[in-house]
This record gives sequence, structure tokens and C-alpha cells, in this order.
Amino acid sequence: MNKLTSTLSEAIRNSGLKSGMTVSFHHHLRNGDHVLNMVMAEIAALGIEGLTVNASSLFDVHAPLADHIRKGVVRKLQCNYMSGALGRFIAEGNMEEPVEFRTHGGRPRDIALGITPIDVAFIAAPASDAMGNCTGKLGRSACGSLGYAVPDAMHAKHVVIITDDLRPYPLTDWSISETNVDQVVVVESIGDPKGIVSGTTKITRDPVGLAMAMDAVRVIKASGLLKEGFSFQTGAGGASLAAAKFLKDVMLKEKIRGSFGLGGITGYLVDMLNEGCFESLMDVQCFDLKAVESIRDNPRHQEISATHYASPAAKSAVVDNLDVVILGATEVDTDFNVNVHTDSSGSIMGGSGGHSDTAAGAKLAMIIAPLSRARLPIVTDRVTCCSTPGSTIDVLVTQKGIAVNPAKPELRQRLVDAGLNVKDIHELKALAERISGTPGKIARGERTVANVIYRDGTKIDEIKNIPVLE
Amino acid sequence: MNKLTSTLSEAIRNSGLKSGMTVSFHHHLRNGDHVLNMVMAEIAALGIEGLTVNASSLFDVHAPLADHIRKGVVRKLQCNYMSGALGRFIAEGNMEEPVEFRTHGGRPRDIALGITPIDVAFIAAPASDAMGNCTGKLGRSACGSLGYAVPDAMHAKHVVIITDDLRPYPLTDWSISETNVDQVVVVESIGDPKGIVSGTTKITRDPVGLAMAMDAVRVIKASGLLKEGFSFQTGAGGASLAAAKFLKDVMLKEKIRGSFGLGGITGYLVDMLNEGCFESLMDVQCFDLKAVESIRDNPRHQEISATHYASPAAKSAVVDNLDVVILGATEVDTDFNVNVHTDSSGSIMGGSGGHSDTAAGAKLAMIIAPLSRARLPIVTDRVTCCSTPGSTIDVLVTQKGIAVNPAKPELRQRLVDAGLNVKDIHELKALAERISGTPGKIARGERTVANVIYRDGTKIDEIKNIPVLE
Repeated sequence: MNKLTSTLSEAIRNSGLKSGMTVSFHHHLRNGDHVLNMVMAEIAALGIEGLTVNASSLFDVHAPLADHIRKGVVRKLQCNYMSGALGRFIAEGNMEEPVEFRTHGGRPRDIALGITPIDVAFIAAPASDAMGNCTGKLGRSACGSLGYAVPDAMHAKHVVIITDDLRPYPLTDWSISETNVDQVVVVESIGDPKGIVSGTTKITRDPVGLAMAMDAVRVIKASGLLKEGFSFQTGAGGASLAAAKFLKDVMLKEKIRGSFGLGGITGYLVDMLNEGCFESLMDVQCFDLKAVESIRDNPRHQEISATHYASPAAKSAVVDNLDVVILGATEVDTDFNVNVHTDSSGSIMGGSGGHSDTAAGAKLAMIIAPLSRARLPIVTDRVTCCSTPGSTIDVLVTQKGIAVNPAKPELRQRLVDAGLNVKDIHELKALAERISGTPGKIARGERTVANVIYRDGTKIDEIKNIPVLE
Repeated sequence: MNKLTSTLSEAIRNSGLKSGMTVSFHHHLRNGDHVLNMVMAEIAALGIEGLTVNASSLFDVHAPLADHIRKGVVRKLQCNYMSGALGRFIAEGNMEEPVEFRTHGGRPRDIALGITPIDVAFIAAPASDAMGNCTGKLGRSACGSLGYAVPDAMHAKHVVIITDDLRPYPLTDWSISETNVDQVVVVESIGDPKGIVSGTTKITRDPVGLAMAMDAVRVIKASGLLKEGFSFQTGAGGASLAAAKFLKDVMLKEKIRGSFGLGGITGYLVDMLNEGCFESLMDVQCFDLKAVESIRDNPRHQEISATHYASPAAKSAVVDNLDVVILGATEVDTDFNVNVHTDSSGSIMGGSGGHSDTAAGAKLAMIIAPLSRARLPIVTDRVTCCSTPGSTIDVLVTQKGIAVNPAKPELRQRLVDAGLNVKDIHELKALAERISGTPGKIARGERTVANVIYRDGTKIDEIKNIPVLE
């Protein structure tokens, strides 16, 4: 007995997929993913149309979706993140239905609650057996954790595993088990390893970034949270990685043994695990090869599902016990609201990902951002798009000063006492405008091209269309 | 943030448990379990009554349930196995509602389908963190796999973890994750290690048992299934263990590398894994200390949920890919139907467990049983209780001959060609009666004391009351 189907086209037909239904994808293969495009091309060839595509994130490699949207194969998109190429296409108003943006925790919530039911989940798996026990840890397309795909596997009516590495039954170290799988399709290649993981993620060399990273670590020290049992998440941006590196130095020097590192995991967090800064890593996504090797070989480096990571519909999630998270921003406003969806032109080039989930969960949610970028101020009166509510953000670190949310006077005092350069956020805004000038108003249309849905299911903002680039 | 509740009584009150609801328990602590009795005593003290108790299995240690039944605290029992002490109490008609017997695969099926909803699951966990990430692999009450508790955790409205070993958050090697847990209660002791696992499970020394075990292995060899990729399950009975030992010798001698060993796992299967007979063990329950150590330390020894083991509601389960299972019987009839629920007096002293699940799944389902036991024939015209339908049983091995299900003529021919002592099952019946005499009819009442529900949800038999012992 096995579940092998010889072609993708046959698997799609077997799945019962019909026009108007919802298909889903995960983004662990990132910009190296072949599977979404492959599946959508077969779906289009079968004449199926009007689909909703629920993808945890969309990258530039998924630009062919634009064509499926134009031709009516795809009617609606749901995702937690969308990179610039497709983002610009959406922002320019090329899609009738607004995109639904969610968070990495809100997506599994809404899948589990039946708010966004999935008819057929297509799950790229770097290794699978013929019954669908599969993993991201093995194979030439190894991506490490498959955490974001777990809710799809658990809740989709029909689940198709797509792999380029068929292993003997039973594959014992499964992330998704056969109990949830209907079909397995073997293809030539599910992805390009070069796009799946970067060889190494790199620390910034920019002196502004390094200075902010140093200040970020000073803030963590001053907060009182950096002690036995400390837990930490940071992004894969250059300054965030530098902060991780500096934090490691402090923890080793002061012999502080933390409990866990969380999130999208990079080699820097793996180093912290191996050098004794943490007891464990809780990994929903691997960013680089070192993380992939570690999650495969080190039992203290554990894969978690998106539900376990951040879902508000779970009875608890790891973000609920997080001490500190370091996050980025394209804009922060004087109410500490953060934009990670749109750039300075109003075009879409991102999304919440785990931003608002970790901000809501962490005891200390810190934004690192330079005061201006490309001669545009980062600190503004009102963010173009509110991705993460200011009520969940505690501190903004810039190269010209550190602002503390006025709702946290005790934290502010700690930072002042530690001699940090604490400023009112309005001061930072004025400083930013003095450097970069007051930005002109972005030209925006009347059409809503995307709705931003907060992790609790409420609509937190919407994104309007922008003029079409000549 | 944590989910610790200081007393069991408070946890029960927090759970919202009310009279008439359903509570559930797992049986990994076997005859050493303290948790079911502890919880039921607290429930009784709170004046809650008319409960349904859904326990994967009940052992002699759970005899206090009889008192809760008499007093109306418990109105109904659902389980997959019940040992003799409580079994006799039920068989004697002391409970108004018939017991519902299911199988290890049927129980998770009916829980997942909402046929047997659980209001509050009380899950004994040998180690847990304060958020409910928990495991059976660690702690002084370690029992290994927690496979049978997984469906309860996933589907119960409210989940209480009860542990005697609280670990720092996050416990990384969880079997049940915090995403499903509402409360954690720390108690003095969840069980008696001596009753949880036997030090070692022992091979029979009885020459009849050894002879049958040899023949069982000859049947497996002759069946043609013993080759590269072979998979195998056997019980923890003395003759079954002897068969595992002899099978290992054959596999090592003939350099046959199987794929997996399945089921309740004993040290004998661990030896087979370590000596290269299998690539992996798929473990829903550990029977002895060696199995507990192995599942903790060897990544090729994998825990599986009851759903993954055997649920017909899963998209597939491991039993679907099983080659050979060796099973026991208290009676087998000439249609190959098997009784594992009642003894020769008609009293309840067992249950399906995984018997019918593995029989249905395996390519070769073999019963080993002596022709008579305590001077009563094992092979009869019609089993007192049909636990496993004869259509799923292929071979009966007795010390006086081997009977093959007439639906399997090719298998029969293979055994004849191999020179095995193949007999018609009616011959075996006649032989059994010649040795032991025709058994007198069991005196049975009119009351149905238990319904036997097959793994697909249909009622396969019922058990009538027996006279009360003086």
C-alpha cells in the first residue's frame, strides 16, 4: 500500500480540486521554491479557475502568480508576507479582490477555526516516504523546519506531499505524518538549494547598524530580563544578527544561561545554543545551512509548528513565554505603531510574518531602525500601514536615541538609570525630519488592494492602491 | 505565564467538569497508575456524578472504579481492554449501562469523529513543563511512549496534565505540546514504577509455548513475507516473545534487514532493532525498561500516536503497512473468529487492544494458542465473544497443528510445501475436544453488560452477564 501518484496533474485531478476552491502552500523553500509555480501551472492547464491561494509567504520567485491572477486562475490571495515583485503588482491594483494579510500566528488560528478553510494543501517536502511521513531535515532540498506547513496538513480536506527525495517507509523523523496525507507525488526538483537557504546569514558591517545593535543589547541588559532562563528571538536582518552576536558575548562573559531561542533560526542562534547561552532552540523556520544542520542533528534544537510558535487559538504558544524580541520596521509612528508591509512609495514589500505575534507575546518588544532610510524619515506621525499596534511595542532603538513607549515608565527609568540615550519619540521624529526633510505625501488611490488582519482576526488596517509605475 | 494549578481538586473545578460529562485517561502507567484513582476520588469528593469514563485500558489497580460505579459517580465505561478484577465486577452485572469496548485504533477514530467526545482529559505525564509540553520518556515514573494519550490531548475540550516531575520550560522532546493543554498539576507520585513497566518481559519456558513459537517462525518463513523490508508486530505474551527471539535468529542468520517493528514494544524488539533486523521501531506503548530507555535514546525508535498506529479515521496508519502480526486468543472458532474479551467462565478479562486493528492491517495475521487451556478447548464452534472477525485472521498455530483460513489457499499451499503440519481447523477442534472434552455451556444471563465495537464503529458482539460468584 502506498499513496504515490505519478504526476502532479493526476494528483490535482484526484484531489477533487474545482474552480472557486482554496489551495495552500508553505514558504520554507523561500526564494528557491519550485512547487507553488509548478502546481499553479498544472492547475491552470486543467482549466481550474477562481481559486483562493493561501500561502504562508510569497517571494519574488512566485512572480508567475501575477499571470495566473490576470488570467483568472487565481481570484484571491491570503499570505503573511509578500516580497516586492508581486507586492508592486498587487499595490498597483491589478487584482480585483483585496489580498488578505495575516500573521504567522493568525494564519494557523484562522485555519484551525475554519475561518480560512483549505480544500487542497500542496506541501513541498524535502524528504518523504510513500505514505506521506515527511520532513524538511533531509534531502538535497533540505530546508529544516516545516513548521508553517503543519496547520495545512492537519486541517486541509486533502493533502498532497510533493517531494524530490522518496525514502523507504517508514521515514521515522517526520514533521508531518501519514495520518494527514492523501497523496505523494515525486518530482524532479522541489527547489533550488541556493534560494532555499543562504550559505550563511551575515552580520551588518554598517557602522550605524552596529551602533544600534550595541544599544539594543544595552537595552536588554538594562531591562532586567537578561538573567537565568532568558528567552530571545531576533530576525535575520543585518543589525538584528549583530545584536545576537553582541548579546552572545555578554551572556558568555556574564555566564548567563538562557532557556530558549525562538523563531526563524540562523547560525547565530545555533552558535548561542552550542556555546551554552540557551538550553534549546524552538524553530519554526530555518534561515541558513547551519540552522538546517543543527535541527537535523541536535535534539535540543526542536522543530515547532506555526501553531506552537504563535497561534492565539492554541491553548498557549511559545511567543507567550518570550522575554525579548528584536524586530525591524519600515516606519514607526509616534504611537509606536509599526509598518512592515509597505515601503516609502506605498508599495507592498513585506508583511507581518511573526512581527505582531512576537511583539504581543514578548515582555520586551524592541524595534531597531535607523532614523532615516534612502533620505526618508522612519519615524513619522502616522505609519502608512499599521502592521503591529504600538500598544505591543516597548522600545525603539535608532542611531540617534532610544524611545520608550510611555506606557512603560518603569522600563524608561531603567534605561535612563543605565545611562542610555533615551529620547521622547517626538524628538526622534523631529530629528529624523531635520535630517531627511518632511516626506511628501504618497500618492494613493481609492481602491483597497489589501486588508491587514491582526492575529486575533480583527482588521487592523488596509492598503490602498498606488500609481502604476511608467 | 504558566498553567500550574496547585491541587487536583482545583483543577477539576477550573475545568468546568459537571455531572453527566465525559472524562478520559490513558493506560501507559498500566498497573502502576495512580492518576485515574486519584482523579476519580477528587471528582467523587466534589459531588460530581453520572460520568462517562473513557480510558484506553483499565487494569487491576483501577478496581476502586467499582465503588464509584456503585455510588453513581460513574455511569458508563469506555475502554479497549479491562483486566480481570474490574472485568468480573462488570460481567456480574453490577453496572446499569453496558461497557463500550473499542480497539486501540477505533478509540482515536471515534474521538476524532466526535462520536465519543471528551470533556476533560486527565493525562498522566512522567515529565512536563509548566505550560504542558510533556513526555513519557523522562522522570522517575517514565513509561516511554504516550501514544494513546495523544488523541485525548488533541480533541478533549479541556486537558489537564498531571505530573510528578516538573521540568524547566520548554521541555523540548514533548509528546503532547502546550498547544493542547489547559492546566498542569504537580502531584507527589503519578505511579509506581514497579507496576508501570516490568523490569524485563520474559520468554516462555513452557515447551508447548516454545514449540508453537518455532512453528510461528516457520509459518512466517514459508509465507514469503520474510525478506528485505519485512515489518512485524508481536505481543508481550511468553510465546509471542519466544517467536520474536527465534525470528531474530533467523533474520540474523539469513541477513534479512526488515523495515520496522511495531506496537507495544518490548526489549526483544529493541534487541532486533539494535542487531540490525529492523531500520526502526514504531512505538505506541513501552512494555519494559529496555523499551523505555531505547525510545528515549535511539532516534530510530519512534513514538507514534494511537491515531498513527491504527486509526481507521486517519488517512493511513502504520498497521496498514504491516507484514506480520502474532496475536493471542482465549478462544478461536472454526470461522477463525477470535475472542480476547472473555475467559472460559464468560467473565471479562481482556479486550481487543490492537488485536483487531493489526489483524485487519497485516498481510499475515497469525494466532498462537495452545489447543486447550486449564482443560478447556481453545478451538470451538463459536467463540463466546467475537473480538476480531475471522475474515481478518490468516493462520492459527497450535502445538498440534496449524490451520489456515480457507480464504487463503495460496498461503495454505506454501505452508504445506514447506512441510508444516497443516490441519483443517475442524480437525483441530475435534482434537481439542478429544483432549479436553466438550466444554459445558457457560451459564449466562439476559443482561448485556458490554458492547464490543469494531474498529470501523460497528457493533461486532455483545457480552452477557454471568452468575455472581458465591
